[in-house]
Amino acid sequence: MLTDKQLDKYAELAISVGINLQKGQPVVLRTDVQNAFFAEIVAKKAYELGASNVYTVWSNERIERVRVDNTKQDVLCNIPAYDAQMYQYFVDQGAGFVSILSSDPDNFEGCNSDKLTKYLLSARRSRQALMSATMSNKNRWTIVSVPSQKWAKKIFPDLETSVAVDKLWEAIAHAVRLECDDPVKAGEEHIATMDRRAEYMTKRNFEYIQFKSANGTDLKVGLAEGHIWTSAGEKAQDGVVFTANLPTEEIFTAPHKYKVEGIVKNALPLVDNGAVIDNFSLTFKDGKVVDFTAEKGYDALKGILTTDEGSTRIGEIALIGKKSPIAESGLLYYQTLFDENASCHLALGAAYPTTVEGGNDMNEQQADKIGLNASVVHVDFMIGTKDLEIVGIGFDGSKEQLFVDGEWVI
Amino acid sequence: MLTDKQLDKYAELAISVGINLQKGQPVVLRTDVQNAFFAEIVAKKAYELGASNVYTVWSNERIERVRVDNTKQDVLCNIPAYDAQMYQYFVDQGAGFVSILSSDPDNFEGCNSDKLTKYLLSARRSRQALMSATMSNKNRWTIVSVPSQKWAKKIFPDLETSVAVDKLWEAIAHAVRLECDDPVKAGEEHIATMDRRAEYMTKRNFEYIQFKSANGTDLKVGLAEGHIWTSAGEKAQDGVVFTANLPTEEIFTAPHKYKVEGIVKNALPLVDNGAVIDNFSLTFKDGKVVDFTAEKGYDALKGILTTDEGSTRIGEIALIGKKSPIAESGLLYYQTLFDENASCHLALGAAYPTTVEGGNDMNEQQADKIGLNASVVHVDFMIGTKDLEIVGIGFDGSKEQLFVDGEWVI
Repeated sequence: MLTDKQLDKYAELAISVGINLQKGQPVVLRTDVQNAFFAEIVAKKAYELGASNVYTVWSNERIERVRVDNTKQDVLCNIPAYDAQMYQYFVDQGAGFVSILSSDPDNFEGCNSDKLTKYLLSARRSRQALMSATMSNKNRWTIVSVPSQKWAKKIFPDLETSVAVDKLWEAIAHAVRLECDDPVKAGEEHIATMDRRAEYMTKRNFEYIQFKSANGTDLKVGLAEGHIWTSAGEKAQDGVVFTANLPTEEIFTAPHKYKVEGIVKNALPLVDNGAVIDNFSLTFKDGKVVDFTAEKGYDALKGILTTDEGSTRIGEIALIGKKSPIAESGLLYYQTLFDENASCHLALGAAYPTTVEGGNDMNEQQADKIGLNASVVHVDFMIGTKDLEIVGIGFDGSKEQLFVDGEWVI
Repeated sequence: MLTDKQLDKYAELAISVGINLQKGQPVVLRTDVQNAFFAEIVAKKAYELGASNVYTVWSNERIERVRVDNTKQDVLCNIPAYDAQMYQYFVDQGAGFVSILSSDPDNFEGCNSDKLTKYLLSARRSRQALMSATMSNKNRWTIVSVPSQKWAKKIFPDLETSVAVDKLWEAIAHAVRLECDDPVKAGEEHIATMDRRAEYMTKRNFEYIQFKSANGTDLKVGLAEGHIWTSAGEKAQDGVVFTANLPTEEIFTAPHKYKVEGIVKNALPLVDNGAVIDNFSLTFKDGKVVDFTAEKGYDALKGILTTDEGSTRIGEIALIGKKSPIAESGLLYYQTLFDENASCHLALGAAYPTTVEGGNDMNEQQADKIGLNASVVHVDFMIGTKDLEIVGIGFDGSKEQLFVDGEWVI
């Protein structure tokens, strides 16, 4: 467990570095009920830093499991209209969204996966206003994590629950630099470093990024026209910077939805809403997944890929060296927020309009033309093996080595 | 702490005796996040007994306190429309409502009471659909209690927290007869006994009920025309019986809003949304409070009385003998659900249309004519002293002694 002072600093990170709260702005906390104690600390901090109002949207994964198991599919998937209205209201109010994650990776283990997939899709559709607002940086948002007992035990199965929770707190604290004298300043400096790397990559304007690994990955990912490499230190539509993920180690941009060729294998399990998908491969032709295999979680992967047309294409490419503090911890977190920051990754589904020039002002046709993918899903999967080689290929055919043995060389 | 079996039985009481769930009916759980473990048990039981869907409306009194302290009044009182839409949806779906109470009686201690009162009024207005549906028994509903640490410590201030929580669990278990072999059957039998007493009182059709106590209470309460004495074993509009409160020991009916005369003093503190009001008196003339005093919580009492025209009149009269298990425990629970079942009480504010013949089909004028009070509030306060004498007075002036020394004599 962290000290009260560390918890307070963590809350400050979420509010000031995370959503970069502006005076008079409302805040929406989205969290499982088991994180109520931390939600209260964040709420107090938000007011201290000038929030006009703090709304909390509670959920509970355990009761959700009971609901998925016991509710008929058509009833379960019929999300009442007030839910969408609620999110629309928050978006319209210009709220900053803070999500506090603590999910048990096994929460939906053994569920009817078809029903679960359809339910999650319905819930995502209901939250469409939130998804659009965050993907386009209309509203500022951030995601932080808090250990739950189940999550901690999943990472440290041999430890006693309370010890496992403490260990996970330590790992989180290290990843977001809470041991520094001034974690907020340290966080800002870290983001500045990543910003410089992102700027360099944007200037180089590669046509393709090529991945090769001994595990069989051999993939060429075209980049969208006018793509911008971005660090998690992003700029919202109102010009205010914010940090969407804490911790964050990635720089990322938009791939070209029609220019992905080859095969890619995952380097870490993909945990999507409780389903674990592992040892899987995706084969791309003209940007589309034309074949896939999965030793574990085949149905869940199929569920993602059959969501809509855009879920068979990718919308994000992100680069992270293996020496990131999260990667160096050597832990598998079973949570995308951490695992994606330990490993290069791609995402099936929607691209961030913010990762191409003028992306937020494009209509569907214009976005499609430059290669920007659209979908109701956005599911990251990790491809960063320890031996990963990455090469940038320019429009003139010139090549630049970016990664050797899983780490940046530029 | 109760055993798993007792908890399961308690959940069954709430679902089968409480809302008397019918197959295919949805359930709405309303609870503080700290009761998540019990909410999960109730949700499982609801599905086991045939619920089509279980919604949970979470709240958290600690964050609510932070909000009330830190949000500007106009912002705080502006409850977004999705909240009212949510309750309307649940009502329209014919849901059964289960509230799980665990409030810290001191949660709002020291708050700006004017702001708090206005906020609570806004929140009540937003929940108007729920309030109308439950007051008129359109939807079936029940209230149960679960100990919280703060609540338990309030009742047992000298005990260690965990011991206090255990003690409160014991008291609750005793009050709802969980120690019986079959608590569901025991609950049903208990309600049948009260039903018989209520039937007798309805047949007698008293014009007035007169209260006298050595504490200064000397009050004549007229009863509404066509009043029906009711036990908490009520009948919903669809004819299905249910039990609105667990535990319950009261029989109650509608007073005549224009026929209350005299002075009444409280026998137990009134705890209204965190404010404790004690040693107070209300003086009635023609049914209206024309004077009031309060040694403690004067502002909170004033807040209730100035809510609307109806909050200065009474809408409920309830009779409970001092030998009810809750009264015999000798504890002050600082929670109306328990304390009202330990003591005769009245309620400022709205009457239950179900406590007069044809009440649900009356318009405003008709309800007014027979003496049925209307208000957005309904606040119970306890008047049952140990020496309380109660006399029923018929339309012919005949008198019947109902209570001697705080207990039924009929």
